[in-house]
Amino acid sequence: MRIDLIVKAAALLSAPGEAIDHDVTLLIQNGRILDILSSSALTENAFQATRIIERPHGLVMPGLINAHTHAPMTLFRGLADDLPLSTWLEDHIFPREAHLTPDLIELGTELACAEMIRSGTTSFVDMYLFEDTIASVVDRVGMRAWLGEGIFDFSTPAFQNGHEALKETDRLMKKWQGHDRISITVDPHTPYTCQAELLQKSAAFARENGCLFVIHVAETAWEDRVIRQKTGLSSVGYLDSIGCLADNTIAVHSVVLSDEDIELYASRGVTVVHCPESNLKLASGISPVPNLLAKCVNVCLGTDGAASNNDLDMFGEMATCARIHKGISNNPTVLPAHTVLEMATVSPSKALGLNGLGRLESGCAADFIVVDFRKPHLMPCTNYMSHLVYAAKGSDVQDVVVAGRLLMEDRKLLTIDEEACLEKIASLAG
Amino acid sequence: MRIDLIVKAAALLSAPGEAIDHDVTLLIQNGRILDILSSSALTENAFQATRIIERPHGLVMPGLINAHTHAPMTLFRGLADDLPLSTWLEDHIFPREAHLTPDLIELGTELACAEMIRSGTTSFVDMYLFEDTIASVVDRVGMRAWLGEGIFDFSTPAFQNGHEALKETDRLMKKWQGHDRISITVDPHTPYTCQAELLQKSAAFARENGCLFVIHVAETAWEDRVIRQKTGLSSVGYLDSIGCLADNTIAVHSVVLSDEDIELYASRGVTVVHCPESNLKLASGISPVPNLLAKCVNVCLGTDGAASNNDLDMFGEMATCARIHKGISNNPTVLPAHTVLEMATVSPSKALGLNGLGRLESGCAADFIVVDFRKPHLMPCTNYMSHLVYAAKGSDVQDVVVAGRLLMEDRKLLTIDEEACLEKIASLAG
Repeated sequence: MRIDLIVKAAALLSAPGEAIDHDVTLLIQNGRILDILSSSALTENAFQATRIIERPHGLVMPGLINAHTHAPMTLFRGLADDLPLSTWLEDHIFPREAHLTPDLIELGTELACAEMIRSGTTSFVDMYLFEDTIASVVDRVGMRAWLGEGIFDFSTPAFQNGHEALKETDRLMKKWQGHDRISITVDPHTPYTCQAELLQKSAAFARENGCLFVIHVAETAWEDRVIRQKTGLSSVGYLDSIGCLADNTIAVHSVVLSDEDIELYASRGVTVVHCPESNLKLASGISPVPNLLAKCVNVCLGTDGAASNNDLDMFGEMATCARIHKGISNNPTVLPAHTVLEMATVSPSKALGLNGLGRLESGCAADFIVVDFRKPHLMPCTNYMSHLVYAAKGSDVQDVVVAGRLLMEDRKLLTIDEEACLEKIASLAG
Repeated sequence: MRIDLIVKAAALLSAPGEAIDHDVTLLIQNGRILDILSSSALTENAFQATRIIERPHGLVMPGLINAHTHAPMTLFRGLADDLPLSTWLEDHIFPREAHLTPDLIELGTELACAEMIRSGTTSFVDMYLFEDTIASVVDRVGMRAWLGEGIFDFSTPAFQNGHEALKETDRLMKKWQGHDRISITVDPHTPYTCQAELLQKSAAFARENGCLFVIHVAETAWEDRVIRQKTGLSSVGYLDSIGCLADNTIAVHSVVLSDEDIELYASRGVTVVHCPESNLKLASGISPVPNLLAKCVNVCLGTDGAASNNDLDMFGEMATCARIHKGISNNPTVLPAHTVLEMATVSPSKALGLNGLGRLESGCAADFIVVDFRKPHLMPCTNYMSHLVYAAKGSDVQDVVVAGRLLMEDRKLLTIDEEACLEKIASLAG
C-alpha cells in the first residue's frame, strides 16, 4: 500500500500519562494518522511511502500547542526588559506598534513560526494586529493556528476603533472559512481597553459564529484595582456580569483570581491560558493553577509574545510551569510532569474543539514532533515524561509534522527560507 | 607572531554590564588571553595560529561557572520526581548511591561534563563521593573544577565516617596540588548530617590549607526546624556559633534565611550559591536573593545535581533566576539581566579566588564560550545581555575554550568521545 509518510521511531507517547510504546511505525495519509504499528510486527514492504523518516533514538509525541502568543512581537524581542507592565506597554511597545506595517507583520510572523517550529510547536493561538497577514504566513508555512484581530476601544495601526476591528473579524471569518489549518477567533484585548458594549458585541459575535472568545483577564494587581474601582467587581466577576464568560471563553493570564473567580470559571466552563514566564518577567505574579485544576478548570500553557518572555519555546515554558508551582506552594507533588504536558497538548485541544488534536492514534490529526533522546542531558532515560518536562529543550526537537506535512526534518526547516528570513531581520536591526 | 589560537567574532562581552565590543579578534597564548584587538585594526598576517575560529555571528563571553553541582548524579536523572526532599533523598537517592562504584562515578562525571560543555559551562564546583575519580575525569576532559569529597557523620559508599572523608580530603589536596585547573575544597554535607565537632575540624582544615569550605545550608523549612530544636539557633546562626562561617565559606541553597542570617553572611563575607531550579522542583522555596544582594553578599548560581534539576544547563538556570525573583517580589526591576550574568561569571570568580577568571581581557584565563546569535529566537538583537539571559539556550553555544584549549568546536566535543559515553549510559539503563 502506498501512503504519504512513514515515521519509524524508538518510542511513542500517544498522550500524556499513557504508557510509552516502543519501536513504533506511524503511517500518515491525507493529513491524518492512518495507523500506528509495532515496527517488529510490520511485514517488510507492506507499505511504501514518498518519505520515510527513521529515528532510532527518537520519541514521537503530539506537537505542542502554544495557547497564547502575539507572533509578530518577535520584532520587539529584548527591546525593553526589567520594567513594569504598564511602562513596558505604554512607553515601549505601543509607540513601536504605531509604526507597524503588514510587511513587518509578515516578517515578524515568519520569524515566530521559524522559532516555534524549531522548538516543537505545531499549533498556536494568536492575538495581534493585521491578523489577515499573519494568516497568510501560517497558510504558507504549514502550521495550524487560531487567529484573532486585537479589538480595542481606541485606534490601532490597523483599525480606527473596536467596531472596525470587529468588522474585520467578520471579514476574516468569511475569508478563511473552511481552511483546514486556520480558524478565526474574536479577541477583545482586555476588560480595561474595551468598554462593556464592545465586549458584549464581541461575545455575541463569537457565540453566533461558534468561535472562540479570547481575552486577557486579571493579568495584574493594577488591572484588578482599576476594574474594581470602575465596576465594584473583579475582572472575572465583571466579565460574567455582562455575559462575557462562557465555554468558548479563553481567559489569558488569570493571575489575580479570588476563590469566587475560580468558581465562576469552573461553572461557566472557561478555559485559562497560563503564561508563567511572561507573568514572572513582568512581575505580574503567578496564576493559582493548582487551585484552578482542583476545580476542574481547563488550563493551557502559552508563551505570550516574545517581547515579554523573551522566547516562544514551549519546552522552556513547561519546565518553568512545572517548577514554579511546586516552589511557591511548598508542595513538590503539584503539577507533575504529565499534568504539565497535558497543558501543552490535550488541554488546549479540548478548548480549540478540533477532534483528534493533541493525541496520537489512528484517525487523529498528524500533528506531531520527534524528540531526539540521544543527548547527554536526556540520558539515562528511565522516564520519558519527566525528561520532556524537566530536561528537554526546544533544540532537541528533530522533526515536526503538521497535518501530515513535514515542516522540519532533522533540524532543517522545509517551508521557510530561514536564512533569507534572518537576513531580513538582521537588516532591520541595522 | 605565532600563537596558539585565534578567535574572530562579531561581538565580545568582556564582563556583564560592560559595553559590547564589535568585530573582535582574541589572541590566545599559554592558556591566557594575550590580547583582544579590533578585527579591522588587525594587519593581515600579523599573527598566525595553529587554530583559527571565525564566527561572523558569534558573541564571545566568559565561560559560565556552575557554582554547585553533584556531577555524577546525572546517573539518577529523572529517577524520582515530584517528591519532597527528604523522601527523594532517603527513599530514592541514598539507596542508589549505596551501589555506586568508581567506574559508575567516572561514567556519570563524563556525561555531566559533556552536558556542561555543550551548554557553555567551563568551570564547576562539585560536592560528591569518590572525588578523586571525578578529578581524573576533569583533568582529562579539560574543564576547570573545584572538587570536595562529601563529609558525613555516617558511612558513605566511599568512606566509613567523616574523619576518614576528611583524611581523604587531605590526600586529595596533596595529590592535586599545583594542578592548573583542579582545586580541592572541604565539603561537610549539611549542619544536620555532620556533628559540630566534624564541622569545626573541617572548617579548621579549610582555614589551614587556604581552601574553600562548602556546605549545604538552610535548604528547607524542615532543616530549619531540626536545627532550631537541637541548638535554639537557625542553621546559619548555629554555624556561626561554632566558628564555621568565614570568607572562605560557600553556603549552598540558603533558602530559609532570616534578616539576622543575612546580616551574619554579610559580616562574615560568606558566599551564597543560589540553585533556583532545584529548590523550586523540590518545593524547598526561593532564596531571598534580592535581600542578599542588597546587603552586598556575594551570590553565585548553580544547577545542583541532575537528579533534582534535572539538567546542568546554566542558561536555563539564569533565565529561571531572572524571572522568578521578579514574579515573587512584584518588582520587575530586581535581578536585571546583567546581575544574573554576574552571578554566573564574575561573582563565582570572586569566591573561587582565581585571578582573571569570569572576565575577558589581556592576561585573563582563556575560559570563554562563543554563542551563535544567528538563530530565530535570538533575533533581532538590540541587547545581547537581555538575549543571553532571557532567550539564549545552552544549545546556542557553538565553541567552548578552557585554559586556552578548545573543548567544543562548532558543537562537536573534542575531549570526550561522546558517542562512546552515551552508548555506555544507554547500556546501563537497559
